[in-house]
Amino acid sequence: MKKSTVKGTNDYLPNEVELREFMQSRILETYKNHGFERISTPIIEDLQNLNKSEGGENLGLIFKVLKRGNKLSEALNSNEELADLGLRYDLTLPLTRYYANNKEKLMFPFKSIQIDRVYRAEQPQRGRLREFTQCDIDVIGNSSWHAEVELIDTTINALLNIGMNKFTIKINDRKLLNIVLLNIGFLENELEEVCILLDKIDKIGLESIREELLQKNYNKKSIEMLIKIYSNDSFRSLEYIEDLCNKDYASNISNIIEVIQSIYSNNNNIKISFDLSLVRGQGYYTGPVFEIVSDEFNGAIAGGGRYDNLIGKFTRENVPAVGFSIGFERIYSILSNRNNSVTYRNKRIAFIYNKSDNYTDVLMKAATFRKEYDISIFEMPKKLSKFLEKAKSQQYYGFYLYGNDDGIRELI
Amino acid sequence: MKKSTVKGTNDYLPNEVELREFMQSRILETYKNHGFERISTPIIEDLQNLNKSEGGENLGLIFKVLKRGNKLSEALNSNEELADLGLRYDLTLPLTRYYANNKEKLMFPFKSIQIDRVYRAEQPQRGRLREFTQCDIDVIGNSSWHAEVELIDTTINALLNIGMNKFTIKINDRKLLNIVLLNIGFLENELEEVCILLDKIDKIGLESIREELLQKNYNKKSIEMLIKIYSNDSFRSLEYIEDLCNKDYASNISNIIEVIQSIYSNNNNIKISFDLSLVRGQGYYTGPVFEIVSDEFNGAIAGGGRYDNLIGKFTRENVPAVGFSIGFERIYSILSNRNNSVTYRNKRIAFIYNKSDNYTDVLMKAATFRKEYDISIFEMPKKLSKFLEKAKSQQYYGFYLYGNDDGIRELI
Repeated sequence: MKKSTVKGTNDYLPNEVELREFMQSRILETYKNHGFERISTPIIEDLQNLNKSEGGENLGLIFKVLKRGNKLSEALNSNEELADLGLRYDLTLPLTRYYANNKEKLMFPFKSIQIDRVYRAEQPQRGRLREFTQCDIDVIGNSSWHAEVELIDTTINALLNIGMNKFTIKINDRKLLNIVLLNIGFLENELEEVCILLDKIDKIGLESIREELLQKNYNKKSIEMLIKIYSNDSFRSLEYIEDLCNKDYASNISNIIEVIQSIYSNNNNIKISFDLSLVRGQGYYTGPVFEIVSDEFNGAIAGGGRYDNLIGKFTRENVPAVGFSIGFERIYSILSNRNNSVTYRNKRIAFIYNKSDNYTDVLMKAATFRKEYDISIFEMPKKLSKFLEKAKSQQYYGFYLYGNDDGIRELI
Repeated sequence: MKKSTVKGTNDYLPNEVELREFMQSRILETYKNHGFERISTPIIEDLQNLNKSEGGENLGLIFKVLKRGNKLSEALNSNEELADLGLRYDLTLPLTRYYANNKEKLMFPFKSIQIDRVYRAEQPQRGRLREFTQCDIDVIGNSSWHAEVELIDTTINALLNIGMNKFTIKINDRKLLNIVLLNIGFLENELEEVCILLDKIDKIGLESIREELLQKNYNKKSIEMLIKIYSNDSFRSLEYIEDLCNKDYASNISNIIEVIQSIYSNNNNIKISFDLSLVRGQGYYTGPVFEIVSDEFNGAIAGGGRYDNLIGKFTRENVPAVGFSIGFERIYSILSNRNNSVTYRNKRIAFIYNKSDNYTDVLMKAATFRKEYDISIFEMPKKLSKFLEKAKSQQYYGFYLYGNDDGIRELI
């Protein structure tokens, strides 16, 4: 039998689980403190729902679950689909299904929390996980920019609460970007491809983008105007963009930036800035999109945006929605590598007795310490010093020798 | 698109999630306080590992994950297995694999906690869940009966901590039962089938068991002796059994019973009793088996036993192990139906503002209440009284009207 995990998935050691639990409970506490409510959905979803969702390239990464019994034999004999279920690849599709399924029983607007596992059949050699935790909050039923502010404010507080304290919020608006692109002459049906290219600006550079656009035979004048906009450093300034498009619409974004700036005006470590190159892959975004970047990690540690058309796929009535997701695994890897001074567990004591001791008395004595410490009982090991070394390496705080008057001694 | 969940799986509403979280965190707190350490393993396991495990009838209930890409085409063309992964059907197989994979990095003996989801392709019409949470503690590397006592004591404390306070621990020993059966003339290769029948004694009655054994042509004298033993009410008394078999071996069980009785001598609601009819299905049990039954639920609310040969399948060296599992879903359904007086959440307030208010000021004011309350911000709804009714039904504690001097008012 194979000892290792399925590739792309992890066994977590007790100390790793504790860091993950610490992150989860602190994030959850902040979310709840800001009025969000946790929901829970199954990991397996109907495969047709998953296939029809707007998951982009994630649709190719779905783990499919084989049909069972007669249905499987029928499928094999008739060349039908072999699978009827799939493992969810994100928490947004399940949320939209959940909302449609339960909306009568939920507050409106509904503010949801999801912290849960998702699955993608990624190529593990690229260092990507096939099973990982996502951490989402969403506001369903509020079309005002207030919802965006609420999500950004709550996420900032969650990050502060787990010890991330220096970061920048980047914000853009997909609709605004589309208006700019249309204004300089691109056509409606070209927008998606241009956006996908712009998303890569930091990776491939402006010159490659020009070349790719020229190859696709887009209007040359439009391409040059685009390059001019993005060559100017002020493409990260909203005032510059307001001149290029409908000023009314841009007020949404400037309101969000203004309110976040005033709330955090006394904290220099938290910045918010407009960035016309921020696109974020998902095709379902319909308005503001945002990301949080940290100096400690090369890339985003949180991201989200407004997706006003997704829930209508289930409910057939338009319901506005906006979400923000913390990059749980990225932050977990940052915090694992930090010499973290946060203490997030009770002091744990190895309580050691001898085989000849009366076991009832041993247990009664151990129980007296449990109000103050986590107590783990061990029979006297053959090599005590080696055992204590191991306990120290496992973050035990101290030990106690039963029948000895020395009390609890710290491991040093 | 389908709004409902995959059959046999559940969406949980916010208030349901809170009860489940409350149970989880209280149980986890108790487990840790008794020195157990939480681990985490993937939900997907190698299908061959699952198939080769001693899961009995659960092996027929495995959700299998389709191979992907070229491997799938190859499998289809060559009549090979179509699946290479499976969803775990319990937490014991993952634990044994985990231990083999990580033992150098773990304490010895190792005391693990697992609270996590498992999957079984049950027939949903029988009211069984296809996705559910299991809640296990295990001691690996301790062959002494002390480990059984530790598990039983810890589980009792966990149940008390979530408000279950009247129950009986039933205990038996598979090895002892085998000795009794051999002593009255059954053969080694008949033991498993006899045990499976005895497991059903409460459901089908002694007379049906006699008939089935006669049909199988077992030795008549042995059958009559068996019926005589189980007709006598004292089959639930250890003294009676000690006369039938090796007294030395029975001392294991009597030690466990004695210690638990002395620790809980001042609590009349907790009882422990020997029961020779307790078998517990799994074939991998090698020694003591135990269950906890509650008057509030027709059936066990916790169960476990010793399985000394399972880990050797991975490590090729014998490692003793014993586990105890709390029936999370059963207890969840008991507690959901109770008018529970336990309060397990912060007081939540609907903080209501008007569209015309300055949103920065609204947020700043709301933040001042967050030390004491969970605050959820809402724009003034069209129908305030209807909104407040809903909030009340969603367990909101009170509401606050921004710009009004009335302060926080309780919802009644």
